[in-house]
Amino acid sequence: MRAEIITIGEEILIGQVADTNSAWMAALLNQNGIMVQRFTTVSDKDGDITEALQGAAGRADIILLTGGLGPTRDDITKNTLARYFGTKLRFDESVMQDIENYLKLYNRPINGLNRTQAEVPENCTVLHNKLGTAPGMWFDINGKVFVSLPGVPYEMKALMSDEVLPRLKQKFSLPFIYNKTVLTIGIAESALAEKIVSWEDTLQKDNISLAYLPSAEMVRLRLSSSGTDYNTLKEKTGCKVDELIALAGKYIYGYDNDTLEEIIGKLLIQNGETLSTAESCTGGYLAHRITSVNGSSAYFKGSVVAYTVETKVNLLGVKPENIERYGVVSANVAEEMAERVRKLQKTDYAIATTGFAGPGGGTAEYPVGTVWIAVASKMQVQSLRFLFPNRRERNIHAAAIRAMTMLRLAMNKHSA
Amino acid sequence: MRAEIITIGEEILIGQVADTNSAWMAALLNQNGIMVQRFTTVSDKDGDITEALQGAAGRADIILLTGGLGPTRDDITKNTLARYFGTKLRFDESVMQDIENYLKLYNRPINGLNRTQAEVPENCTVLHNKLGTAPGMWFDINGKVFVSLPGVPYEMKALMSDEVLPRLKQKFSLPFIYNKTVLTIGIAESALAEKIVSWEDTLQKDNISLAYLPSAEMVRLRLSSSGTDYNTLKEKTGCKVDELIALAGKYIYGYDNDTLEEIIGKLLIQNGETLSTAESCTGGYLAHRITSVNGSSAYFKGSVVAYTVETKVNLLGVKPENIERYGVVSANVAEEMAERVRKLQKTDYAIATTGFAGPGGGTAEYPVGTVWIAVASKMQVQSLRFLFPNRRERNIHAAAIRAMTMLRLAMNKHSA
Repeated sequence: MRAEIITIGEEILIGQVADTNSAWMAALLNQNGIMVQRFTTVSDKDGDITEALQGAAGRADIILLTGGLGPTRDDITKNTLARYFGTKLRFDESVMQDIENYLKLYNRPINGLNRTQAEVPENCTVLHNKLGTAPGMWFDINGKVFVSLPGVPYEMKALMSDEVLPRLKQKFSLPFIYNKTVLTIGIAESALAEKIVSWEDTLQKDNISLAYLPSAEMVRLRLSSSGTDYNTLKEKTGCKVDELIALAGKYIYGYDNDTLEEIIGKLLIQNGETLSTAESCTGGYLAHRITSVNGSSAYFKGSVVAYTVETKVNLLGVKPENIERYGVVSANVAEEMAERVRKLQKTDYAIATTGFAGPGGGTAEYPVGTVWIAVASKMQVQSLRFLFPNRRERNIHAAAIRAMTMLRLAMNKHSA
Repeated sequence: MRAEIITIGEEILIGQVADTNSAWMAALLNQNGIMVQRFTTVSDKDGDITEALQGAAGRADIILLTGGLGPTRDDITKNTLARYFGTKLRFDESVMQDIENYLKLYNRPINGLNRTQAEVPENCTVLHNKLGTAPGMWFDINGKVFVSLPGVPYEMKALMSDEVLPRLKQKFSLPFIYNKTVLTIGIAESALAEKIVSWEDTLQKDNISLAYLPSAEMVRLRLSSSGTDYNTLKEKTGCKVDELIALAGKYIYGYDNDTLEEIIGKLLIQNGETLSTAESCTGGYLAHRITSVNGSSAYFKGSVVAYTVETKVNLLGVKPENIERYGVVSANVAEEMAERVRKLQKTDYAIATTGFAGPGGGTAEYPVGTVWIAVASKMQVQSLRFLFPNRRERNIHAAAIRAMTMLRLAMNKHSA
């Protein structure tokens, strides 16, 4: 089964907005046995869209379009599709109802432009969009499927997962693709590859392919295999994962879509324990990551983001003489911040960060990119120094990942 | 002058790697008067590359390719180009010299695969790559230009800036493209479109095109025009922006790449004022956004992320009886949080958030998605209620955007 993705939007062609939709859609389709053979991006011009449609229809079985479905006059995808299929737009009451419900949530009035959003080509099946005003559209034309989706990423993603993929699975008999992603942290891609080279060689015998997916501070390993029986695929992959745990278990923190913040949250709930943070260089990002988990208020009491020496002293109660003596970026201050916030917030654990995220700051001893992270529990406080070589935003991100990893290891040294 | 960009790489089509090259190249070309009318991504297959080349050559004057120039056998772009142009590969001594020099820098040995990298189609002009082993190639065929560049972003960028762009400027006499993006918040795309419809109609006379770029909580409006004189374009666009300000100025918070956090930061620095936050439902995200700006420690003192009632009472000093009486999500508690943190942190301004980010929580009076935001200054404290209908993550994002907007308006009611 071959697919192509067509992205419509002038803003992408002038380089103002990066197209992240195509990669996301391609990954989802790929995991479900559909090969994407081409991405095309064209502007909101009738001729360009039509030519892209014709080309894709000549090569692929599934053609997915995103973008150009807004209420304004530069959005012409629907008209172009109707013309391409030789049909007309019809007003769809159920879509109008969706739009009314959606706008009501926002307390926004409905205007004439919104009404045009309820018009769809006569030959389409409507895919109801719960997160916006533009409907998705499904066309089944002589065995080929065309799908038009809004370009807003979260709207597109919800429609792809909830509407498009189930329909594609129903229409085409797709092979089973079994994917298992192993999440590692604390080891570089090349070092990991060297460590598991013999194991990697054994994968071929089982027709399992391996992909390295490195990202900031982490390397994900994706094992994929395809076949007709889910349980067979699951079992042989499970054996290989067990072998991998034996080789590199101490770097593995989770699987598939696990996030560090969710794993920490589960451990805290399991143990009936609580957490707080004191953040200097991470500036609230650590608390943000922790509170991005549904129900995190059950274990997270809060954070003191202490962005100045004054706040560290006045709100956290760090001793000024320690800041004077060791420097604000130091093991001592990190540990004191963690212990102080743990007592202030009355929590079982606390994490503290202090560092130079960059581009300014740094000392002779500790250059820009240095971050001290401390984790305090009832039993002990432990701190580690990291040196991140990136730009500000990535250093903050890296520090939060490392801080959560330190907490995870402190909570459960035998997690695999 | 019309260009197309062709990206070659299987890793992009399976969604493993996002194509960031095309957007970067398009932005550079656009700023230099070259319109990119299509991006295409294909895999490293001879037939797919050839078909993409044929299509692009039929439509565009300039065809830029990236990727598929590595030393391994899955990289076939050069052979495909030679076949497409009906020519052969020749060994280029100057490229071999580049490769030897480059590998020497890294103390790496030269192998047979590197030697094949010194082979180029007979009809190309070599673009010397100082940052890697794959040469860039320039083809001038019957007035059309084809350029093949390595896919490694920093190698591609250096070759584009140093070699390709100067040659394009020399070969084609390029028009000027002037873009101005107006950033709005607090008004839906369709309502904004309705408000400025007459103004939009006047743009055509000046040959200015308008694009609506909606994203969470914001709508960006991009005005584009092309011509030969930069100042003329700038001036006529400026007049139209002034007219837009008169129509919808209260929704405009900035231009082009401005961010709310940067705008707030500039205003605070200008006024020599300081800021702190007290966050419940935003969980540190607001502090994170504010501290993502370089140098934010000059005006941001910190945040108290008070995720429980206990923390609101103990750390912030909110009165328990007020929480009891009004509820933790209420105007009173939001205002008290803002005032308390402003005094604790001794800042000129403070922002507080309290709400139900979802999916849990909510009361009969205030359903899930309700967020109260308060902004306190020396003069007054003001609070507003919002109802965000999205998922947790997006509600948190939306609340932070609205909170920064409230602060901006409190600081400078006449910003445009």
